[in-house]
This record gives sequence, C-alpha cells and structure tokens, in this order.
Amino acid sequence: MPRLRSRSDVSATEKIALAEFAPDILAFLGRAAYVQLMIFENLSRVISTAPTTAAKTAIGKAAELSMAKHRKLVDEITKAGGSPAEVMDSFTDEVDEFDRIARGADWYESLISAYLSAGFFDDFYARLAAGLPTESHTRLVEIFRGESGEEVLAEFLQAAIDENPRLDSRLAMWGRRLMGDMMLLARSALVFPDHTRNTEAQVEPVFTELVASHTRRMDALGLTA
Amino acid sequence: MPRLRSRSDVSATEKIALAEFAPDILAFLGRAAYVQLMIFENLSRVISTAPTTAAKTAIGKAAELSMAKHRKLVDEITKAGGSPAEVMDSFTDEVDEFDRIARGADWYESLISAYLSAGFFDDFYARLAAGLPTESHTRLVEIFRGESGEEVLAEFLQAAIDENPRLDSRLAMWGRRLMGDMMLLARSALVFPDHTRNTEAQVEPVFTELVASHTRRMDALGLTA
Repeated sequence: MPRLRSRSDVSATEKIALAEFAPDILAFLGRAAYVQLMIFENLSRVISTAPTTAAKTAIGKAAELSMAKHRKLVDEITKAGGSPAEVMDSFTDEVDEFDRIARGADWYESLISAYLSAGFFDDFYARLAAGLPTESHTRLVEIFRGESGEEVLAEFLQAAIDENPRLDSRLAMWGRRLMGDMMLLARSALVFPDHTRNTEAQVEPVFTELVASHTRRMDALGLTA
Repeated sequence: MPRLRSRSDVSATEKIALAEFAPDILAFLGRAAYVQLMIFENLSRVISTAPTTAAKTAIGKAAELSMAKHRKLVDEITKAGGSPAEVMDSFTDEVDEFDRIARGADWYESLISAYLSAGFFDDFYARLAAGLPTESHTRLVEIFRGESGEEVLAEFLQAAIDENPRLDSRLAMWGRRLMGDMMLLARSALVFPDHTRNTEAQVEPVFTELVASHTRRMDALGLTA
C-alpha cells in the first residue's frame, strides 16, 4: 500500500478503507472525468441563466477551473493507456441521470447543486485517488484538491439567501435531497467483491466524512444539512 | 484536416483607418468582454448538446480559452478604472440579440456560429485595439490574437460535413447570413463623428479585410462564402 504525503487531509485509515474498493484506474478516471464535465455543463447553464452580468463573469471562473480539471483528467486517461471518450462513455447514462436531477427547478437550485456537487465529488475522488496503487495517485489528488471556485459560488448563494427570506428552507431541502443522490453516485464507483464481509461497515467512515464536509458546505450558507 | 492560415499582423493603414472611429476605452472593453462572454455561452451550449463525449472534451478547450479571454478583458476594464458589469451592461441588449440569431437551428449551425464569430470578433477587436491611444493596446492585441481553439472547431465541422453530404450547402448559407449580422454588430462599435465625410469609404478597407478572413475560414471547410 503506497503511503501518500500531501497537503490533503486524507487520513491513512480512510485511504485503506477505500483503496480496497477502488475500481481499476481507467474506470476511476473515466467516471471522474465525466463527472467533472457534468459539473462544467451545470456551471455553464448557471452562467447562461444568471440574473446579472456580474454573476456571469464571477461564476465563469468556476466554469473555467472545472473545464481545466476535466481536461487534466482526460490527459490522465491517455497517459494510463485509455481512449478518453470510450472510457467515459461507460458512465454517461448514470452521470447524466444524476445531472437531470441536479439541475433543479430554477437558477438557485442549479447554483447550489453546482456548489455542493463540485465540493462533494472533488472530496470523494481525492479520497479514492489517494488509495490507488498507481504512480499517478499523487498527481490525481492534486487535481481534485485544486481550486474549484467554490467561494465564488458560495458568495452568490449567500447574497441570494440574504435577499430572499424564503429561499433558505427551499435550498436546505434541496441540499438534503441532493446529498442522497450524490451518495448513490459515489457509492456506485466502488467495487465490492462478493467475498467481502461487512463492506458497508468498512466504507462507512469515509461516507461519514463526506457527509461532514457536505454539512460544512451547507453550514457555510447558514443552511441546515 | 482543414488548414487555417495564420492571422496576419495588423498593417499600419488598417490601424489608422479604424483608430479614428474607435470608441473610448471603456466602451471598447465592455463590448469586447461581453461579446467574448457570448462566445463562451455559445460554446458551452455546443458542448451540452454535442453528439459525442469526444466532441464535448475537445470543444471544452475552446470554451476554456474563451472564458479566460473574457476574464482577461474584465480585468482590463478594472485596470482602466471601470466597473466591469456596469460597463458591459450597456451592450447586453445588442449582443444578446445577435446571440439569439447566431444560435441557429441545430448543433451544426451553433458550432459554425461559434467558429466563425470567435474568429471574426477576435480579428475585428484586435484591429480596433491596435489603434487605441492607450498604454493597454499592446496587451489587448495579444489577448485578441491569443489561442481560441479555432482548429478544434474546424475539425468537428469538417468531420460533420464529410459525413453529411447535404450539410455543406446549409452551412454555407448560414455562414453568409451570419456574416451580415457580424458586420452589423462590429460596425455598431465604431463611433462616426457627424462632421466626418465619406466615413464609409474610410473604414471600407478594414471591413474588406474582415470579409477576406471570414472567407478563408469558410474556405478552410470547403464552404463557399
């Protein structure tokens, strides 16, 4: 088991817990790259439907970072000997289905989906990457831990909540619903061998940590997770 | 593979011809920054509706470059002492109206609009920037002459045309129509003082050059401009 020394906050216990269930490197990268593309598409819709030009420009930075992250992951697929589109195409149905839910009913729901899902999946994939037995794992953790423009999205959400007193309960509910769907999509990336006993208990600490990070992102907006 | 001729340097004659009609620096930057945002939005719609994952990733690079260009122009507005959103908001109606036309009826029309308009407006604004009497003009020309992902867009258009024998006449017609609308939007950026005689004749050489570049972009795809 390679030990990772990095600025990431992934503990050894979590790495071991997930490493056992990590998919092969191409499946991992294909899924992560396509999820990142979905996050970009969601952000670009948020830009197109933004109520102000200031919001378009500010959120544009998050979209740019997200596309850069997607393209870095695509490069990693090539480095690992895969054909990017082919590798990603195995996961499009599942991820697109999540995306249809995550879009939400209006601009605010799309915006909080972009904020919560970018944070959640970067977090999840960084933890999963840390345990991968490949030479690329340090590079991959760096990609996922890279800047995402989360602060800018939080700022616009905060401003919207402040201006709109009824928005917070709706977005709180939306965040809880999205959490369930994100957990399902994350869990589906893990490979559970038939002979493994009590696997749920083994991955449980990791999902507890993901929920805690999600709760912190909700708290940052004053929303009850 | 379509071959694109590299963009020629702006000649002194063209600089002088346009400099006389250049708007003030903030109006110039506001318009150019918002046009660039529109190009990004068009590209991101092209990504969302792309028929293949390979197209999404490849065109993603153009979208990323376009957003980076937009944000550089926004930074220039700040440097010039303007408030970016406020400065851009004077031009949103006019540019959004162009965008509604440029979207086209399907993916191929959107894609060729993105390809043609990115090239056309980069070319036009580079020429206009070259004549600006500000310390920023060299920087601005560099921004507009920067990489735009044009080759990638041309590649996907070429592949689509090759596969689809009836597409070329439709896209040729679309390109001609778009040319007229791009000319109108470009011309509206120029300030014609009342006392100037025969201004059309003075700016004519510049527009002739813009049409020639547009024709080269169409030629690269085997389309009649």
